[in-house]
Amino acid sequence: MSLITVGTMAFDAIETPFGKVDKIVGGSATYVAYAASNFVKDVKQISIIGYDFPIEELNELKSRGVKIDGVEMIKDKKSFFWSGKYHTDMNTRDTLITDLNVLADFNPIVPDTYQDAEFLMLGNLMPKLQLSVINQMKVRPKLIVMDTMNFWMDIALDDLKEVLTKVDVLLVNDGEARQLSNEFSLVKAAKKIMEMGPKFLIIKKGEHGALLFHENHVFYAPALPLEEVFDPTGAGDTFAGGFIGHLAKTKDISFENMKTAIIVGSAMASYCVEKFGPERLKEITKEDIETRIGEFVELVSFDIDLV
Amino acid sequence: MSLITVGTMAFDAIETPFGKVDKIVGGSATYVAYAASNFVKDVKQISIIGYDFPIEELNELKSRGVKIDGVEMIKDKKSFFWSGKYHTDMNTRDTLITDLNVLADFNPIVPDTYQDAEFLMLGNLMPKLQLSVINQMKVRPKLIVMDTMNFWMDIALDDLKEVLTKVDVLLVNDGEARQLSNEFSLVKAAKKIMEMGPKFLIIKKGEHGALLFHENHVFYAPALPLEEVFDPTGAGDTFAGGFIGHLAKTKDISFENMKTAIIVGSAMASYCVEKFGPERLKEITKEDIETRIGEFVELVSFDIDLV
Repeated sequence: MSLITVGTMAFDAIETPFGKVDKIVGGSATYVAYAASNFVKDVKQISIIGYDFPIEELNELKSRGVKIDGVEMIKDKKSFFWSGKYHTDMNTRDTLITDLNVLADFNPIVPDTYQDAEFLMLGNLMPKLQLSVINQMKVRPKLIVMDTMNFWMDIALDDLKEVLTKVDVLLVNDGEARQLSNEFSLVKAAKKIMEMGPKFLIIKKGEHGALLFHENHVFYAPALPLEEVFDPTGAGDTFAGGFIGHLAKTKDISFENMKTAIIVGSAMASYCVEKFGPERLKEITKEDIETRIGEFVELVSFDIDLV
Repeated sequence: MSLITVGTMAFDAIETPFGKVDKIVGGSATYVAYAASNFVKDVKQISIIGYDFPIEELNELKSRGVKIDGVEMIKDKKSFFWSGKYHTDMNTRDTLITDLNVLADFNPIVPDTYQDAEFLMLGNLMPKLQLSVINQMKVRPKLIVMDTMNFWMDIALDDLKEVLTKVDVLLVNDGEARQLSNEFSLVKAAKKIMEMGPKFLIIKKGEHGALLFHENHVFYAPALPLEEVFDPTGAGDTFAGGFIGHLAKTKDISFENMKTAIIVGSAMASYCVEKFGPERLKEITKEDIETRIGEFVELVSFDIDLV
């Protein structure tokens, strides 16, 4: 089943307690594509890149079945560039540089060849652009998943709220869920946010795992305790890619299957953080993914016929 | 199977975003006893109280099968008193007052009638006192579980390390695990701490659940996402009481059964935080506990035959 993913393709400069890279490929759509392409062979990318984006990266993505008809290339501008430095706890970071470059002109167009997609992943972008993509779909996808961030809550809340009325699943972190709902309790926050539109809400808590809310149900997916988190960049997008990739592969959008999809997304994210950028995602095999998912099963399994 | 629990019985004054109490019964041994007495009818308490400790509270504990032969009563001194105020996030708090009172003279004595106990719960106390209790046992208990805190790491690290060589299970929070091991990664911290003595390590992460480490195994128990955390005081001790209570009831100290015990402890702690002090623990029934454990099962269950 085919999947459209919309987001950035970019360069990142990253500093973590473990090292530093000056320029590595990044961007939300890049991570989503690397993760999702393990599950779906028809990932349809919508993004924008400058003259400096490496052709080898595009070829690597194409070899994984990623379509790039929807990736606009601007000949005289540079790709989006982000630079950040992580604190010791790896849960917080400072943004050092944000050079929009081509992103300033991004006007995502859904190619005709993408119109059959039943799954749509809206990476973190200006809400107006997310809305534009939804409105271009001639047939509403079976499932629309949306990522966003606190920045848009600060400067484009009305637009964001409009997009929320049109999506099925929202992905945010705990701080963002609190900001959007004005509730400290994540249970209360989830109720308020689901009233804004999404039927499903995933709250990502980094090293503390993720929560999936739907109606009165809640599911808690742990994060795998790792010896070392080398670079958290892209972990959220990789999670999203594994999540929607599994759903698109199985074509099952039930709450039960979303729980499984969250475990798949968590497994993918746990690989992502092992090396800088998307490097680790390029190396892993289907067997690696199965092994990691097995570790998640192990991590939370217990017997209960007891009290 | 009988269980000795050593710790404080005290008064607390507590302020949370939801309200304030000037004087409510507290103390680690109190919470452990209320939790464990749901599972074991022979909880043998070792503590010290002043003239002001309410007789009704002792009667309530006795009615639950808690033995108080080991609770020393000092006629001319007040009970230990702690006062604290929680921040909005409920994960952090400021200590306002610590009046040691009787606790300054605490010299725990293990009564002869306690010597048959196979399970020993050492609540958070000066390490020298924990050590004294262990040394008084004529037959080493089948399982010794120990709680501690950063304060003892600051001022009595050598004593603490000596106790660590004599216990089976250590309970600490994530910050304490990091301080004790000097490692940021909890996986690395766990390895170092288990080299100090305990074969099992439980790292409590409050609203983010708990991790159980043993050899190369790890288990992740979630915390139940709650609409409201009314008062976190005693949640860690209640967790410990449910944990060791379940182990003492089942007499099974395998890793597999400890995983179950952690879920039981988490269920007890989730009730504890619903009201001030141990109030909620006094109200709940066996059916309530089973219901809550069922919610934990639901919270983490997923199917996995998929990738």
